Amino acid sequence: MVTLNTNKETLYLGVDGGGSKCRAVLYGESSGILGEGLSGPANPLHGFEQSLFSICESADKAILAAGLSPDVKNQLVVGLGLAGVNLPALHQKIEQWQHPFKQAYVTTDLHVACVGAHRGGDGAVIITGTGSCGFASVKGETLTLGAHGFPHGDKGSGAWIGLQAVEHCLLEFDQLASPSVLREKMAATDALSLVEKVAQQPPRFYARLAPLVFEAADENDPVAIKILKQGAEYIDALAQRLFQLEPPRFSMIGGLTTRLIPWLSTSVVDRISDPLDPPEIGAVYFAQQKHQKKEAS
Amino acid sequence: MVTLNTNKETLYLGVDGGGSKCRAVLYGESSGILGEGLSGPANPLHGFEQSLFSICESADKAILAAGLSPDVKNQLVVGLGLAGVNLPALHQKIEQWQHPFKQAYVTTDLHVACVGAHRGGDGAVIITGTGSCGFASVKGETLTLGAHGFPHGDKGSGAWIGLQAVEHCLLEFDQLASPSVLREKMAATDALSLVEKVAQQPPRFYARLAPLVFEAADENDPVAIKILKQGAEYIDALAQRLFQLEPPRFSMIGGLTTRLIPWLSTSVVDRISDPLDPPEIGAVYFAQQKHQKKEAS
Repeated sequence: MVTLNTNKETLYLGVDGGGSKCRAVLYGESSGILGEGLSGPANPLHGFEQSLFSICESADKAILAAGLSPDVKNQLVVGLGLAGVNLPALHQKIEQWQHPFKQAYVTTDLHVACVGAHRGGDGAVIITGTGSCGFASVKGETLTLGAHGFPHGDKGSGAWIGLQAVEHCLLEFDQLASPSVLREKMAATDALSLVEKVAQQPPRFYARLAPLVFEAADENDPVAIKILKQGAEYIDALAQRLFQLEPPRFSMIGGLTTRLIPWLSTSVVDRISDPLDPPEIGAVYFAQQKHQKKEAS
Repeated sequence: MVTLNTNKETLYLGVDGGGSKCRAVLYGESSGILGEGLSGPANPLHGFEQSLFSICESADKAILAAGLSPDVKNQLVVGLGLAGVNLPALHQKIEQWQHPFKQAYVTTDLHVACVGAHRGGDGAVIITGTGSCGFASVKGETLTLGAHGFPHGDKGSGAWIGLQAVEHCLLEFDQLASPSVLREKMAATDALSLVEKVAQQPPRFYARLAPLVFEAADENDPVAIKILKQGAEYIDALAQRLFQLEPPRFSMIGGLTTRLIPWLSTSVVDRISDPLDPPEIGAVYFAQQKHQKKEAS
């Protein structure tokens, strides 16, 4: 067991909670990263109790990985970056949680991603994975774009790209759209079985189809190219909107980023810097900033 | 109680089951309509047990309305026109149902709507309500178009129109789309509260927004006009595809029809004939045709 003067050192827990997983990092004020823990979904919009469970489980795992006693939990200053809490009602509900920590500060997963990407400094991020969104924090002002959810928002995201591909294939089966290799790529033999496969499916199902669209575009499929151009156009517009705030740094994060970048305009690509730290470390910085401000007041 | 020689006369029950309601009509071979009954949802895709319940309840109500004894149920030759049963797995599951009737013949709600609209004869129909679809039955050949569901299909439908409007408003709040009166019409004050309102909502929620889009278009809102033109373009294409089968008659059915017709091309509008009978009567004709064929063989 690590000898750590937990009486003297402030212990932070940074949590990045999203639709599919929750990642926690235990961080000592002077010792740095002590341990990490991973758990299941933590988007309170899609399961409130599940989210609380995932937060606690990832915390327990991080404490265990650090070789510390579970009792240390009530000494932790926690930064919670959670999907969905941009909705005021959910934010309030999480704030009211009788959590087992010393202190918990809540914000969005976008916010901690941005704080992490720029190591606590000002900047902007665009996140493209299952969903899509933009966030900027500059001189105390923040701006959130997108993050609207599926199917009404998240343009240019993996789920959106997959949905466009399915829509096209269904029109194609009805002979109401031009042929595309997407049908073959998705192993779709007829409209009925495709409908059966996609009915009631969540965004992540559609997002899993996105790589096939990039593949088809690489093979010069005009339908796939059109979908990706349209998606990239939106991400470009999102970036230009964020640039209006003159962020000193700009990063692109998320599972779709690498594939999407070749489709973006050079004026956006030229401004991309690598993210410096992951979102869960951003959540630690966020907790530190909030805590120091509170202690100072 | 009606005196009816139920021993001599074949009694038919026509059932039109959809996502929000189930309508049944009791029909005597020579006496015509004897009674009608209405029940809840009967789309087996969205609730199998609920659908069976709705079918039985609407049947019981029709029998009651006819002043007949509930025992008559086991003498009924039933035509079931159900949403969702174009999916082979669901069709099979319904076929295996140990129903309380003498005989039950299953087909889609589209099929019975078409049979009803053309009083048992050949023809084509387009149904636009919460969803959208086309169906033709000509010289023993049938063609089903659309009916793919939400959000991946149902272009030009009420749900699709509502979704486009929500998508536009969310982009507008992010200053990534041109202004429109739709925002005001939907009483949307900001992106967050709009997202909160639409998150996880079913197609019928979006369909309820469609009238606002027609209203906005009447006031010359360019965004609403663009949405409706795009939707109508699809419905036009659907009609042209059906016309390839040379149906002797063509009808448009569903809650959105009246509002949509002014947006369709004249080559489609010119071919529209009024539907002659409602879908539940179509289900009676369907049951008759199937039963007579069976008796003859």
